[in-house]
Amino acid sequence: MDMWTPLLLALLGASRAFGYGYEEHWFTTQVDHFSFANNDVFKMRYLVNDSWWDGDGGPIFFYTGNEGDIELFLENTGAMFDIAPEFGALVVFAEHRYYGQSQPYPNVSLSDPARAGFLTSEQALADYADLLTHLRATLPGAQASPVITFGGSYGGMLAAWFRVKYPHVVQGAIASSAPILQFTGITPCEAFGQVVTRTFGKEGDMCPRVIRKSWDAIDRLTADQEGMDWLSDAWNLCSPLNSSQLTDFKQWLNDMYTNFAMIDYPYPASFLSPLPGYPVKVACSYLHDDHGNDDRALLTNIYDVINLYFNYTGAADCVDTGSQGTSSLGDDGWDFQACTEMVMPMCYDGVADMFAPSPWNLAEYTAACRARHNVQPRPLMAPLLYGGLNITGSSNIVFANGLLDPWSSGGVLRSLSDSLVAVIIPNGAHHLDLRGSNPADPPDVIEARRVQREFIGVWIKQYEKVKDRNAFNAAKKRW
Amino acid sequence: MDMWTPLLLALLGASRAFGYGYEEHWFTTQVDHFSFANNDVFKMRYLVNDSWWDGDGGPIFFYTGNEGDIELFLENTGAMFDIAPEFGALVVFAEHRYYGQSQPYPNVSLSDPARAGFLTSEQALADYADLLTHLRATLPGAQASPVITFGGSYGGMLAAWFRVKYPHVVQGAIASSAPILQFTGITPCEAFGQVVTRTFGKEGDMCPRVIRKSWDAIDRLTADQEGMDWLSDAWNLCSPLNSSQLTDFKQWLNDMYTNFAMIDYPYPASFLSPLPGYPVKVACSYLHDDHGNDDRALLTNIYDVINLYFNYTGAADCVDTGSQGTSSLGDDGWDFQACTEMVMPMCYDGVADMFAPSPWNLAEYTAACRARHNVQPRPLMAPLLYGGLNITGSSNIVFANGLLDPWSSGGVLRSLSDSLVAVIIPNGAHHLDLRGSNPADPPDVIEARRVQREFIGVWIKQYEKVKDRNAFNAAKKRW
Repeated sequence: MDMWTPLLLALLGASRAFGYGYEEHWFTTQVDHFSFANNDVFKMRYLVNDSWWDGDGGPIFFYTGNEGDIELFLENTGAMFDIAPEFGALVVFAEHRYYGQSQPYPNVSLSDPARAGFLTSEQALADYADLLTHLRATLPGAQASPVITFGGSYGGMLAAWFRVKYPHVVQGAIASSAPILQFTGITPCEAFGQVVTRTFGKEGDMCPRVIRKSWDAIDRLTADQEGMDWLSDAWNLCSPLNSSQLTDFKQWLNDMYTNFAMIDYPYPASFLSPLPGYPVKVACSYLHDDHGNDDRALLTNIYDVINLYFNYTGAADCVDTGSQGTSSLGDDGWDFQACTEMVMPMCYDGVADMFAPSPWNLAEYTAACRARHNVQPRPLMAPLLYGGLNITGSSNIVFANGLLDPWSSGGVLRSLSDSLVAVIIPNGAHHLDLRGSNPADPPDVIEARRVQREFIGVWIKQYEKVKDRNAFNAAKKRW
Repeated sequence: MDMWTPLLLALLGASRAFGYGYEEHWFTTQVDHFSFANNDVFKMRYLVNDSWWDGDGGPIFFYTGNEGDIELFLENTGAMFDIAPEFGALVVFAEHRYYGQSQPYPNVSLSDPARAGFLTSEQALADYADLLTHLRATLPGAQASPVITFGGSYGGMLAAWFRVKYPHVVQGAIASSAPILQFTGITPCEAFGQVVTRTFGKEGDMCPRVIRKSWDAIDRLTADQEGMDWLSDAWNLCSPLNSSQLTDFKQWLNDMYTNFAMIDYPYPASFLSPLPGYPVKVACSYLHDDHGNDDRALLTNIYDVINLYFNYTGAADCVDTGSQGTSSLGDDGWDFQACTEMVMPMCYDGVADMFAPSPWNLAEYTAACRARHNVQPRPLMAPLLYGGLNITGSSNIVFANGLLDPWSSGGVLRSLSDSLVAVIIPNGAHHLDLRGSNPADPPDVIEARRVQREFIGVWIKQYEKVKDRNAFNAAKKRW
């Protein structure tokens, strides 16, 4: 904390000091920014760190919170505070509506669209624009501060779209692992599973081959109660399997492999689950293909991978197939978003990927969403409102994608213009570049961060010029 | 109509042929594009003329309909079809939701925000984006068509904001008489009235001086019933004045002078009301200042101006103080918008302007809006969502403003960048440049239209390049 802190706290109405040198604040904004049928307001939470801020126009580094408690992202976005001192930046983490403590309607049911229906990316971006406008208007020295947004995954989509939609609020965006192209009609549904498979395949062909074989083994074994009982026991499941859960059970397993690829970081981390460095390599080192036709031997072998993912710390008594190991991500909220705006088609063929064949079926998907949330998905909403790949009318975004990360399938992998820049991190997993620097970082992520810093500097300089011209115009404006 | 017409009609499901060579069509879209609390859809109307279209990628000229029946704007936007042949353009006029025949909830009460609350500019722009995406997807030859938006007044704001918010849909915008700066904290409230006064003053000082004196005369005369009766008779009012109407009555008179300035066209026209060429000059020629202290003589003189505005055709039996003479503008809808998002502060001091002194009072304004529409105005909504003057992150907009037009007070009068260009029309009134060419056009509006054509050509060429690069990128995209 520097000399400004007491003043800042007074101005922002800070409620309590927070970990990592952050202060927690609240901001009141509209539930519906775009219409007048609902005039409710709610309080969103944000965290501020002014330790490094040049309070005379220094930039604001703004994390566009995504689907979870903002503290989770604060803990996994060290890159922002690694570079804040160099730029004299104020660091702000904003919590996404309907996640963490930022609840428009506390204890809302996500099957009540009349209240849950305002959980959309457009509304969240308007929250952030409102918050930043407030900060610029009320924080001494921030009035002319350039704003650089940061975000990873869905947060990266928000960081980029924030620049696209609010260029008057945001001067540039670092969009990490942001699958803005993972939508209907833009990216083929099979791409995602193929990247997961490629990441497992980097350790050799055997690893995806064993996993690919396991799906049929599961089907054969779970065809009767005796086999299900065996599997429940062999995999140490918290609740014994029954036949009505089989679809969800396989989806849970599918998600686990996907998560392995997402968090295939070069050092031990605990983003989605505590895991050793390069966990895919460790997982694959457990798998072997000498089971012949013995399904039970094969699945016992697969259990070693499950146990790695769900019990690396040794603290778990059993394996909970109802979770992916992280409690801070708002899975229910995301499920609602996936059922409304964030419809990202995925399909698997079991040939080019290592998963059980499963076509993309919008009708089934829609029926399931109707049943769970009483909503009708709008698969074309995000492409309509944000433009898909067709964003060359915008500027000042760095899209960084690690090629180990399944979500790179929907990422911007080629630069679209001089100021819409793609940075590829061949040895990077899901937004590795946003994590704090680490001795185990591969050179390509170090280079990615260098490029990001360089562009941030360019955007800030560019904004100084525009600011000067705006001031000039404002002074000269006559009617 | 060219050879494509039958095919187009079949594809678009045209319902009937229309005046000016236009076909009328309907498009179904969401009532709420940004949330899922309301999942209703409605049909919006749009008019299409393909007489001049180069159906192999020729541009789409898209009028962003504003507050009225779209036919009114079709009839007053001849500039679009003057230049359509040169560009081989498809011409589309889209009707704004809640106006004309594009009613999400037919016969909705504008004091029922649960249903009327979706009457906002953001929702209207999303309608237009949805419609254009549909047209590009379904019209053979339109897939890669650049879109140029046109609009005047609020329609000009929409044309510009459409480019700002949807650069993936819109390649460039001609925003005529678009007061995007007429909002709280951007333009002083006194500016508007001063421009009206300046326009009346161009005929000499006497004209605004007489009008300025008339307000006190009205106050003195309407202080008692006898005076009100006299005035009702002298001004041939359809309904006799009573003291409860005096505020509205003076507002009606205020609006009339404003409208005179807005439609001070160089030739006879009937946009808001049928009037001769340069009607302000005609009005001022009626006024003289030799009334001494005779209020009745002064107001009898003012009646000549009223009679000019409301009865130039000689068809009116009496003067209706409940109207401004045009039935196609949706005054009620606009009043709702002015009470919600389009809060444009105006004030008068009677010194620098010719009006009765009247401060801007947000509390009173809010109370009146609550009473009329059950809504709470959000004066900072438009600046928050669109950025006010701070749109240098955007591009490809020509802002044209006539300096006779009061709305130029909130217009962009200086270029903000090489591609955010201000064009001033010293002898132009409200979106004169969008009207069809006329032998009486002053040279400055001819030049303004030339500049607009030049930029349209540049934007179309620019888009060809981006299109090529996008196609290249799409072809090379791998995950």
